[in-house]
Amino acid sequence: MDKQQHGGNITAFAQNINCSVDEVIDLSSNINSVKPHISIDFNTLNISAYPNYEKLENAIAQLYNVERSQLELFNGATTAIYTLFRELNLNHCTLYAPLYLEYEKSAQLNNYTIEYINRVKEINKEVKENSFVVFVNPSTPDGKFYDIDKLINKWIEKGCTILIDESFLDFTPFNSAIEHLKSYNKLYILKSMTKFYSSAGIRIGALLSNSTNIAKIKKQEPLWKISQFDSHYLQSALKDKNFIKTSNKINSTNKIYLTTLLKSSSLINKIYPSDANFIMVKLHKINAEQFQEKLLPYKIMIRDCSNFKFLDNSFVRIAVKGREALKILERAL
Amino acid sequence: MDKQQHGGNITAFAQNINCSVDEVIDLSSNINSVKPHISIDFNTLNISAYPNYEKLENAIAQLYNVERSQLELFNGATTAIYTLFRELNLNHCTLYAPLYLEYEKSAQLNNYTIEYINRVKEINKEVKENSFVVFVNPSTPDGKFYDIDKLINKWIEKGCTILIDESFLDFTPFNSAIEHLKSYNKLYILKSMTKFYSSAGIRIGALLSNSTNIAKIKKQEPLWKISQFDSHYLQSALKDKNFIKTSNKINSTNKIYLTTLLKSSSLINKIYPSDANFIMVKLHKINAEQFQEKLLPYKIMIRDCSNFKFLDNSFVRIAVKGREALKILERAL
Repeated sequence: MDKQQHGGNITAFAQNINCSVDEVIDLSSNINSVKPHISIDFNTLNISAYPNYEKLENAIAQLYNVERSQLELFNGATTAIYTLFRELNLNHCTLYAPLYLEYEKSAQLNNYTIEYINRVKEINKEVKENSFVVFVNPSTPDGKFYDIDKLINKWIEKGCTILIDESFLDFTPFNSAIEHLKSYNKLYILKSMTKFYSSAGIRIGALLSNSTNIAKIKKQEPLWKISQFDSHYLQSALKDKNFIKTSNKINSTNKIYLTTLLKSSSLINKIYPSDANFIMVKLHKINAEQFQEKLLPYKIMIRDCSNFKFLDNSFVRIAVKGREALKILERAL
Repeated sequence: MDKQQHGGNITAFAQNINCSVDEVIDLSSNINSVKPHISIDFNTLNISAYPNYEKLENAIAQLYNVERSQLELFNGATTAIYTLFRELNLNHCTLYAPLYLEYEKSAQLNNYTIEYINRVKEINKEVKENSFVVFVNPSTPDGKFYDIDKLINKWIEKGCTILIDESFLDFTPFNSAIEHLKSYNKLYILKSMTKFYSSAGIRIGALLSNSTNIAKIKKQEPLWKISQFDSHYLQSALKDKNFIKTSNKINSTNKIYLTTLLKSSSLINKIYPSDANFIMVKLHKINAEQFQEKLLPYKIMIRDCSNFKFLDNSFVRIAVKGREALKILERAL
């Protein structure tokens, strides 16, 4: 079976094991299994007219307590990453790894010299002056939240441009780095709106910074980028005022359940504590490919972590999904 | 009232005249007023999973009779334009004007020297060797289709890179320049999928070229770009096999109706023959702003053409819309 570069390609997985997409138990992608209440009828939406993003932008600005002029929307967080690397047009970047693979790709496409810092082993390593620093918090594939205030101050001392990717922060009770926008003008915060709001099929990511930086990026961007369908989905999701609480309650319970069942498996050597909706484990006497093979009869798809920097094929990532899916995993293990 | 850069911003227009968006009669944007039959229920669509574009790409490839490897999708034709100017990274471009305004913006953002050719007055003017030539066919804001085979051969002789924007070609019975892809490797064809399929709110544009060029562009692009909603809308629209015929029949009838009513107006000096779903007129003893003011009581929005190269405020563009909307225009005139 072909290895996938990212998790979540259920179409290819289903084709490979000859089942329908609906049958796949996808524990490889880290999309919230709890869904917001959506109160609009998409079938009656007027999609003839050109979209206007005022309401959507205001709703996201309100959610993160920034001005509308402090954010730019993209058709997905990955597009935001590609755009930022390109627009900043710097020479050197520091990637705290392991991290989302598209950072390396984006840095390479834009001819950055890449320096990796192993955040597990040497998080306090000095960064190069004026480097473009990328930190994903909570991190992936392990889901650890780092208290990075001290690190941020060190990066600021070095004059670094900073991107904090907070695509999984909404799953946690922790504070955003957004407050630093007030005091430092080379800081960007990235929010994938699709993980927490359970919608990888809609393409919206938000990049936050100060108004001057955002205006500069906006100048280079097309007027219409986000689907009217997607805009209305997210606006409706953001109106579900109980969602954050409900989601976090259900995910906490399910994460405890998943942790317990992983602990009881002889195939697993170590479970890494996670603040997000997925758990990384180190396997015991079995590699990721063999582990995935074992789960195939159950149509369970997990994330082989061997293509993450500083990890190898003894690591896999397993998503916190609903009780039913996890029960099948339990049976499989 | 503020002038708009493009047509179609009905939200701003409605705010200005203090009415609801639904009341606006938008004759400023050139979105098909005939809609395809959509046979899916968007409310039941699974948007949790990451999208896969195989089916959509195959459907578009089949529509234009190219291989799937010959096309790359973008979240709108404008994103495709911005990307192409950037990726080609050439020095000089030749814009046959008047044309869609985003070409000038994109050329400026990417530091191209711009040479304009007035396609109305000097279409046979020589182009500079190795220039990046852009021709919109049918053109905008006048909708004229040009038989450009001879021009294409001249551009090829000069070693030019060529972009033919065929965003309005589906409204006409004429042949695409796609056939030239077989014989010339520096040719790109752009198809906005949202004009003809009546969906500016969905964001899909297709760039066609040979497989090598497309592979090169694809390497620079994020994996997920198009909304799952949008993908399903367009796939469903493309399954409506009667749509092309029905749309062209209704639009032809309405275009004759619009032409007749424009002819009888003393405010109009000249009507330009159009092959697309909009008509450009030269006004008589009134300018575009005054003309728009006159239409405000009827909540009719038209496109002031004064910001198009080689045009001035005596030109406006009026969309071919349904009979009801045109009857209100008739009353206003």
